Amino acid sequence: MTDHYSVSDKHLVAVDCVIFGYDIYDKELKLLLIKRKFEPEFGKWSLPGGFVKKDESVSGAACRVLYQLTGLAELYMEQSYTYGDINRDTGGRVITITHFALINAYQLDPVMIEASSAHWRSISRIPKLIFDHEKIVKKAHRQLIERIKVKPVGFELLPEKFTLVQLQQLYEAIYLRTIDKRNFRKKIISMNLLEKLDEKEKETSKKGAFYYKFIPARYDDFRRKGFYFNLDVQ
Amino acid sequence: MTDHYSVSDKHLVAVDCVIFGYDIYDKELKLLLIKRKFEPEFGKWSLPGGFVKKDESVSGAACRVLYQLTGLAELYMEQSYTYGDINRDTGGRVITITHFALINAYQLDPVMIEASSAHWRSISRIPKLIFDHEKIVKKAHRQLIERIKVKPVGFELLPEKFTLVQLQQLYEAIYLRTIDKRNFRKKIISMNLLEKLDEKEKETSKKGAFYYKFIPARYDDFRRKGFYFNLDVQ
Repeated sequence: MTDHYSVSDKHLVAVDCVIFGYDIYDKELKLLLIKRKFEPEFGKWSLPGGFVKKDESVSGAACRVLYQLTGLAELYMEQSYTYGDINRDTGGRVITITHFALINAYQLDPVMIEASSAHWRSISRIPKLIFDHEKIVKKAHRQLIERIKVKPVGFELLPEKFTLVQLQQLYEAIYLRTIDKRNFRKKIISMNLLEKLDEKEKETSKKGAFYYKFIPARYDDFRRKGFYFNLDVQ
Repeated sequence: MTDHYSVSDKHLVAVDCVIFGYDIYDKELKLLLIKRKFEPEFGKWSLPGGFVKKDESVSGAACRVLYQLTGLAELYMEQSYTYGDINRDTGGRVITITHFALINAYQLDPVMIEASSAHWRSISRIPKLIFDHEKIVKKAHRQLIERIKVKPVGFELLPEKFTLVQLQQLYEAIYLRTIDKRNFRKKIISMNLLEKLDEKEKETSKKGAFYYKFIPARYDDFRRKGFYFNLDVQ
């Protein structure tokens, strides 16, 4: 009997990470990009990535890439898509499993970022990227848009306390369009997942706006009762 | 400069296919399974799959597996998920990119199926499968449920002409629950994607029920006008 395992072709397998970041002052969804450090395409803009090693899982490889770049071990991460065309990488045949991660840009140590020659770039002004990386970003961005409608993952991109205006600005930054304020507030309040704090944000207006906090335990409870997160607002 | 391409680990990469089938008489969503023809797990129930070759893309490999098994070159297929744990396959370290395909079970040549020792099994009575294949099926089934709510892919599983009852039965077979008939009809009719034929299906009732046909060009038009397919019915 042929041992299919020993006679079949083997491939280089990589992970590439689409790292979305946000900060409440810029109000822009950003992407963490690096200048590639080896050939081909040395010095060109690229997604952070790396080859999967023999002794690590695919998701382990993605975590390693994220950790090496950001110093953060606990990031929200999801598998996005696998790209397997023969000629997608001009350096050799590489199958890449892409992931997207969400990060509150203020969590990042700027010194670490600088040391990795990584840079934040606005999603609406992405430079030319190597290989099929622009396609990879577009798909991950579409997936993020779908995800934040039906799962409370947007909070990963915000500081612990935020105002409802700041939450709406985050959604608008991801959607790249404005949304209806009344409907947005009605929907988010009606799910009862946020706790209103006694404290006010007073930098943007004299009157101030109350801070809120997302309570994960309330979400667990909400799901157990059979409800679905829904912030799909026009 | 290190040539990362030549020094990095290489891996066996596979595709596994979750082939969903339906026929309007059984009213059950089915899965095409095979008895594995090599070690380890020889003779056990498995998803159809194969190793990706040097000279083919990942999606090309999935098409090859589907074609060899069904004789059909034009099937609806989507990438599902990539499984990359180190020990998921007891025969060796294999990263698998799973795909799901949709097929009107009547399209299939039973002789061909038999020759491949493939068998249809109801989604609600799946035998024990090798490795992580049960997990793979569950995820693909959840994705199919989400997909048929927002994209007109269910028609791939039906003959060209079908009654509204038959269309509803398909959705119920995929959801594994009953749905509200009035809402379902209202939603599907209101999108105006179906053409009502002059012909009636008379086997199931004396009065008969009109046949309908899905018109892809109407769907293209519908999307161009900015509408979204939506058959999310409770």
